[in-house]
Amino acid sequence: MVQSDPALESRGLRPLRIAIFGFGTVGSSVARIVAECKPEGLQLTHVFNRNVARKRADWAGPSVVWSEDADAVLASDADVIVELMGGLDPAGGFIRRALEAGKSVVTANKKLIAFHGVELERLAARHGGHLKYGAAVAGGIPVIPGVEQGLAGDRIEKIEGILNGTCNFILSKMDAGAEYAPVLAEAQAKGYAEADPTEDVGGFDARAKLAILMRLAMRVEVDPDEIVPRPITEVTAVDFSYARDLGCTIRQVARAQKTNGNVAATVGPTLIDLHSPMAWSRGTENMVILSGHYGGDVVFSGHGAGGHPTAVAVVSDLVALAHGSRRVEIPSQKAKVEAEFDVPHYIRFLVNDRPGIVHEITGALARESINIRAIVQKAGYPANALPFVVTVEPCKSSALQRALASIRTMDCLLEPPLDLQMLE
Amino acid sequence: MVQSDPALESRGLRPLRIAIFGFGTVGSSVARIVAECKPEGLQLTHVFNRNVARKRADWAGPSVVWSEDADAVLASDADVIVELMGGLDPAGGFIRRALEAGKSVVTANKKLIAFHGVELERLAARHGGHLKYGAAVAGGIPVIPGVEQGLAGDRIEKIEGILNGTCNFILSKMDAGAEYAPVLAEAQAKGYAEADPTEDVGGFDARAKLAILMRLAMRVEVDPDEIVPRPITEVTAVDFSYARDLGCTIRQVARAQKTNGNVAATVGPTLIDLHSPMAWSRGTENMVILSGHYGGDVVFSGHGAGGHPTAVAVVSDLVALAHGSRRVEIPSQKAKVEAEFDVPHYIRFLVNDRPGIVHEITGALARESINIRAIVQKAGYPANALPFVVTVEPCKSSALQRALASIRTMDCLLEPPLDLQMLE
Ligand SMILES: NC(=O)c1ccc[n+]([C@@H]2O[C@H](COP(=O)([O-])OP(=O)(O)OC[C@H]3O[C@@H](n4cnc5c(N)ncnc54)[C@H](OP(=O)(O)O)[C@@H]3O)[C@@H](O)[C@H]2O)c1
Ligand SMILES: NC(=O)c1ccc[n+]([C@@H]2O[C@H](COP(=O)([O-])OP(=O)(O)OC[C@H]3O[C@@H](n4cnc5c(N)ncnc54)[C@H](OP(=O)(O)O)[C@@H]3O)[C@@H](O)[C@H]2O)c1
Repeated sequence: MVQSDPALESRGLRPLRIAIFGFGTVGSSVARIVAECKPEGLQLTHVFNRNVARKRADWAGPSVVWSEDADAVLASDADVIVELMGGLDPAGGFIRRALEAGKSVVTANKKLIAFHGVELERLAARHGGHLKYGAAVAGGIPVIPGVEQGLAGDRIEKIEGILNGTCNFILSKMDAGAEYAPVLAEAQAKGYAEADPTEDVGGFDARAKLAILMRLAMRVEVDPDEIVPRPITEVTAVDFSYARDLGCTIRQVARAQKTNGNVAATVGPTLIDLHSPMAWSRGTENMVILSGHYGGDVVFSGHGAGGHPTAVAVVSDLVALAHGSRRVEIPSQKAKVEAEFDVPHYIRFLVNDRPGIVHEITGALARESINIRAIVQKAGYPANALPFVVTVEPCKSSALQRALASIRTMDCLLEPPLDLQMLE
Repeated sequence: MVQSDPALESRGLRPLRIAIFGFGTVGSSVARIVAECKPEGLQLTHVFNRNVARKRADWAGPSVVWSEDADAVLASDADVIVELMGGLDPAGGFIRRALEAGKSVVTANKKLIAFHGVELERLAARHGGHLKYGAAVAGGIPVIPGVEQGLAGDRIEKIEGILNGTCNFILSKMDAGAEYAPVLAEAQAKGYAEADPTEDVGGFDARAKLAILMRLAMRVEVDPDEIVPRPITEVTAVDFSYARDLGCTIRQVARAQKTNGNVAATVGPTLIDLHSPMAWSRGTENMVILSGHYGGDVVFSGHGAGGHPTAVAVVSDLVALAHGSRRVEIPSQKAKVEAEFDVPHYIRFLVNDRPGIVHEITGALARESINIRAIVQKAGYPANALPFVVTVEPCKSSALQRALASIRTMDCLLEPPLDLQMLE
């Protein structure tokens, strides 16, 4: 039982009984930090996991109840459910039941928050509990607290970020010369990537985080499915080589912009200038750049994933709850992701060379009023599998896609051209 | 009068009547943002300034009372005093009186918070008000909210930062070839530097911010006067030239470290690797790197100063107050700044050349068991005013100072040698 401690209470601290749901990478790190640092006012009372016997850890403290009975833990006197199972189900159901019972919930589950955050926050408010998810975006980097508490006074107009550590690990290794398949295998061996890497490499994870940030920073509620992510699997060694010749590298970038109420958002591999902050990010690092109307650019970076960094965000949320610190919840409006970025693009072709190719491509671009910036062809490739690159001045994606639709019918193409946005 | 708004109140919002004390750069920006963005629950009701007639601004709203009578405003029904006058007096007295009256206070006054923050927080707690100072460190970059709300779950072991925009402006311009005096004049003309620049270039401003961060992130209360700052005025063009040959540049760096309860802290010009994040910072940019035991390094950067960025932090504090979001106040312990960094140093000599100089210098260093890393002497300087550099392996400052005390007696020195820490 949590002892009522008048010294704590006089400082406004409410001792909290904590139940962890899901004792995996992050869940066990949370228990580890609580056991080692003993943050005032926090007591781990329950751990729920399937087949929980495997998980039992003496260091977590003698009074912890280890349970595989979710109903019993939800019905217990725990004040806060810390959901670290992941996925929409059954995690979402447990969270709803906890909130309906007036408990507070802390979670790192970006997918659930991206799709159901608004509804869950309302549920929390209705029953007097709190929902916190500081770990859901950029793991251990305090972007969510920074936005909610420190940038609420600004009007955020643009978000750019490297929001998925797995993709950044893979692309920064490819940048240094590695091939996709062995780097993915390495990421899986190191525990950075799942057995099925689709959520990460397909851009779905970054998209969920972007949607959460858009709501908190830009105050727009978008349906994450309206942001169609581009997978990083399309990028090859030749693209890194051409990118470098253009003074760039390639990273998975998530970005959103709000201009006169119009919202644009994309996620996918993107060319970024070697001198831009995002090009600094190495390995599993995350980075977020928020551009405010009044405050200009603010950059956050650090470890976006990993058990311990993510657990820091979870424990910080718990400490804030114990201190009675409420979230700053600013109303958001529903919005459609309908606008487009007007940005330069990189288009890489792989052709069986013959006369007239550049003429046809430039013709298709000209018909859409897209201006060529540069045509680059490196030496050393065979004529029957020749990669070359066209970069174009800022244009809308839709115009470029129309041009590419006609270009794609060209007989000389060995594969569909790869078009990437270039960040300026 | 603030209308009581049931819709707001049902969401836990408490409408706040705001009185700005000091309508200068930041104060007027705060009023501007409130007027333009109309954040829910905030109403500017009073502005106090000496000779206030000069300051009156219609755009701030028709119901604002413009006053040069501090007593009257303190006695008014304003809920929050926003102190943006600066300095210890009379700002401190006004803040104390506001807190004693049960009002809350938001301030950007780093000096006051560094020296009297603990006492003022106690005063606020005793009278049921709140004290917030998110703008006091790194202006518009949400380092304080990030630390309080997002890193409370970690144990921060190291802080490194570029905390003074004026010094960064001056040093990054000198890095690009300019001389100190004209750059200082330019900084003054642009409003980045005061007529008396001592607070900034002497390191006192950065020291105050470092002391605040040490308390919030490392939970140690230090007397700022125990951190003896080194002025940037000692650095000359020749140092930038030598630094570059060593793969470095020079910035004013504030740093603190806590190892087994021992606290070290310094502020001054420092050699930093050209590939380190701090070398990216340009112009008036600020950057803070916090190293946590569990979460690793987290980097924040952006506009550390300027009316609008600083006002974003002030308005964000006000929004948080209106939302009933309490600070996460974790108890801190008094501590002495007694430990020393064990770091490599750069020592630049200016000599009238004669045989035996290097022999004498290396002897003095050897007697203190300090190992030489490199001796660098660039061509093109006259023998009678010859600058050269010795870098040494990690050593304590105290040992180096003993060696330098003996070196300083050498007859060939045209000026005392300049020793700078090198960041690794
Ligand atoms: N890992 C990171 O770096 C990171 C970073 C940011 C956010 N997150 C988020 O944090 C959450 C947890 O991630 P994680 O990496 O800790 O995952 P994990 O290592 O797979 O841990 C999940 C835990 O939940 C348990 N679990 C899953 N489904 C369950 C069910 N239906 N019933 C009972 N127990 C169940 C698992 O048990 P088994 O052992 O039986 O599978 C496992 O112990 C996810 O939402 C993730 O997106 C993770
Ligand atoms: N500017 C920045 O970029 C920045 C960044 C971070 C934090 N801050 C902090 O923010 C605070 C305000 O800075 P600021 O740049 O806005 O300064 P400022 O432009 O000099 O404004 C100060 C205002 O307070 C008034 N004032 C000063 N002393 C007064 C007194 N005794 N009685 C009545 N009015 C008085 C001044 O009136 P007069 O016009 O008559 O002098 C002026 O309007 C300081 O604590 C500063 O350290 C500033």
